[in-house]
Amino acid sequence: MDAISVIRSKRDRGRLDDEQIDWVIDAYTRGKVADEQMSALAMAILLNGMDRAEIARWTAAMIASGERMDFSGLSRPTADKHSTGGVGDKITLPLAPLVAACGAAVPQLSGRGLGHTGGTLDKLESIPGWRASLSNDEMMAVLEDVGAVVCAAGDGLAPADKKLYALRDVTGTVESIPLIASSIMSKKIAEGTGALVLDVKVGSGAFMKNLDDARELASTMVGLGTDHGVRTIALLTNMAVPLGLTAGNALEVRESVEVLAGGGPADVVDLTLALAREMLDAAGLTDADPAKALADGRAMDAWRRMVRAQGGDPDAALPTAREQHTVTAPATGVLTALDAYAVGVAAWRLGAGRARKEDAVQAGAGVELHAKPGDSVTEGQPLLTLHTDTPAAFPGALHALDGAFAIAAPGTPFTPAPIVLDRIVPA
Amino acid sequence: MDAISVIRSKRDRGRLDDEQIDWVIDAYTRGKVADEQMSALAMAILLNGMDRAEIARWTAAMIASGERMDFSGLSRPTADKHSTGGVGDKITLPLAPLVAACGAAVPQLSGRGLGHTGGTLDKLESIPGWRASLSNDEMMAVLEDVGAVVCAAGDGLAPADKKLYALRDVTGTVESIPLIASSIMSKKIAEGTGALVLDVKVGSGAFMKNLDDARELASTMVGLGTDHGVRTIALLTNMAVPLGLTAGNALEVRESVEVLAGGGPADVVDLTLALAREMLDAAGLTDADPAKALADGRAMDAWRRMVRAQGGDPDAALPTAREQHTVTAPATGVLTALDAYAVGVAAWRLGAGRARKEDAVQAGAGVELHAKPGDSVTEGQPLLTLHTDTPAAFPGALHALDGAFAIAAPGTPFTPAPIVLDRIVPA
Repeated sequence: MDAISVIRSKRDRGRLDDEQIDWVIDAYTRGKVADEQMSALAMAILLNGMDRAEIARWTAAMIASGERMDFSGLSRPTADKHSTGGVGDKITLPLAPLVAACGAAVPQLSGRGLGHTGGTLDKLESIPGWRASLSNDEMMAVLEDVGAVVCAAGDGLAPADKKLYALRDVTGTVESIPLIASSIMSKKIAEGTGALVLDVKVGSGAFMKNLDDARELASTMVGLGTDHGVRTIALLTNMAVPLGLTAGNALEVRESVEVLAGGGPADVVDLTLALAREMLDAAGLTDADPAKALADGRAMDAWRRMVRAQGGDPDAALPTAREQHTVTAPATGVLTALDAYAVGVAAWRLGAGRARKEDAVQAGAGVELHAKPGDSVTEGQPLLTLHTDTPAAFPGALHALDGAFAIAAPGTPFTPAPIVLDRIVPA
Repeated sequence: MDAISVIRSKRDRGRLDDEQIDWVIDAYTRGKVADEQMSALAMAILLNGMDRAEIARWTAAMIASGERMDFSGLSRPTADKHSTGGVGDKITLPLAPLVAACGAAVPQLSGRGLGHTGGTLDKLESIPGWRASLSNDEMMAVLEDVGAVVCAAGDGLAPADKKLYALRDVTGTVESIPLIASSIMSKKIAEGTGALVLDVKVGSGAFMKNLDDARELASTMVGLGTDHGVRTIALLTNMAVPLGLTAGNALEVRESVEVLAGGGPADVVDLTLALAREMLDAAGLTDADPAKALADGRAMDAWRRMVRAQGGDPDAALPTAREQHTVTAPATGVLTALDAYAVGVAAWRLGAGRARKEDAVQAGAGVELHAKPGDSVTEGQPLLTLHTDTPAAFPGALHALDGAFAIAAPGTPFTPAPIVLDRIVPA
């Protein structure tokens, strides 16, 4: 077996057999297949595809490259959620304690943001004292006691994926559904959850720009989870507009706490409850009532205990940015569009996100929305507030927002798209 | 400009524009584009192609990455030949002195063998004393005086191609007509010849297995040469069977000397004369008569002077291998096939070729043929003799020859394919 013969198989539109996949993933992890060979193979996969059996084996080989976690010793059933990433997607923050309050264990191993989408760990780190790193023993103790933990994934899970993802990022080979699906699912399956709900975002602010691609990705991932014994379903959700009214780290924590307190924007509440229902059903907790747990304060209680368990102070004031700039409505009428991607790029440029892995993020930076599509607005009213510690960032953020919103004549009928667009279950 | 955007352009089936091509070749040569990025781009080019304008710019950028030679100070017109490589292809050895004897300067910058095809330098190095390295001044002096020089290409010519070729070799991205054509032609154009004849081999022993691919490669290369002001034509020649009766370094030198002495196998003589005619015409020496120069000993005289000018002794005995093994005809009849690739692999395994660049070759090793397709053979007569210093290589060589020849019933009519299959001129 050698790298060139594996590359040629896929280059010439053949199937990779099990032995080829096992060999190439293992050899790449051990440094016996060079980066330049793996990137040629990744490009051949991107252009020529992989069938379901190839994707399943590729995923299994990446799982086998590292360790697997085991939550079977917990008294609670586990349920995990993964979002493919969007603008203002703070759902993990209210969702994890809500599902924990209903009896499940939610081991939410998360990442940091890169580019225009934020990262859950960056958001939680805006809470004074909160830390992302826990030992395995600490994680198990918090999961048993509180039921929810959000922390950084260890390096031992699917190391082949970690190495391959970094390579794809610099070689133009990210945009492949087989490679995206196997990357996400190898980590999620290695994390050892029994139930998994995928939130596949669709729209300008998401990686998947159209419903067909999102459906294909979702179906592929649901199939992979199911084949590995994880009860997996996916919701396709709208990312043409930002989720909620905030994009930025501390801004999103504040909005999440509002949701846990029984308020917050309707789309955030609706999506949190929809995902909670799916997670609880997949975990076998079909009698649990997440709307009640949200209304009666049990979710908020779990949130406070979750934050404290990781060193955070849930009562501390959240950081705010030093400078604000308000964008006002240029006309009176009905807001019909507010582009998620533009808002994400603006928040990123204001300091909420990072361009390189080693960059720091500003806790207070971001974009606050004062209206969403479907709302009536009056000329001169605040539409957006930009927050940053570095006012030199305002022009770039404003440039990103050029053409990002549309206002139709007063009285124009407009119905915003629903938040949940489709539901994908095992075939 | 960055590598990922260039990769994405080609990945998404777009054209690379001039600025992208110039940038990526220059940045790769300087180490600013990483190997893993260039291999992803090479795979995208292999799978999605390049049009004629892209190939022309890619070639120009590789030429611009290094120095160009200049033979305009010579009193003789220059004519160069390039073969895409085959089994038993010793044509450069009789051809270069023959064309020199007719008045042209033949600056034949050659390479070493890798895999089943031999290298011209390896063949000449079997002559005691002969050395491949000459300074530029020495080369010019020999070209002016003798008219023919065969030496190693300097590192300064098209360094981008040198780096890219080594990368393609290990990443399964060799088999791309745009990349093959630009690789060959960037070196040949940088070598500064005024006229170029391409010998594009077709058949099992060649890189191009069928006539359509060979025609496309030849047309692409003829177009590139023409666009750069080099008078270029191509012959497509048969490589389904080995050229001549020998494959191996000293064995091929011996056969070449036989041709220069007025004998030798008909196919070697015919192809040598056909290529000489094309080179002389392209160099403007239309009155020269290569058949006469071969018959009257002028070509042999040029050969002896060429060998001596590079330290070789044309009268020294050539090395012979220590061990021989003869394969006999299993039946009486007409030989109808003798597979070039199988003979090439056998010669390689016997020690005539190398598996890695750093390997040494055996001067005496190789395969000697006692019959060619079209010849009648008698059961038990010698068909092939294998030569090696390492008899442990015999079983592997014999295994390569399994099924490599076919014998039809006595009297079966059989006409061997002509040596020259087609001729490609500028459009």
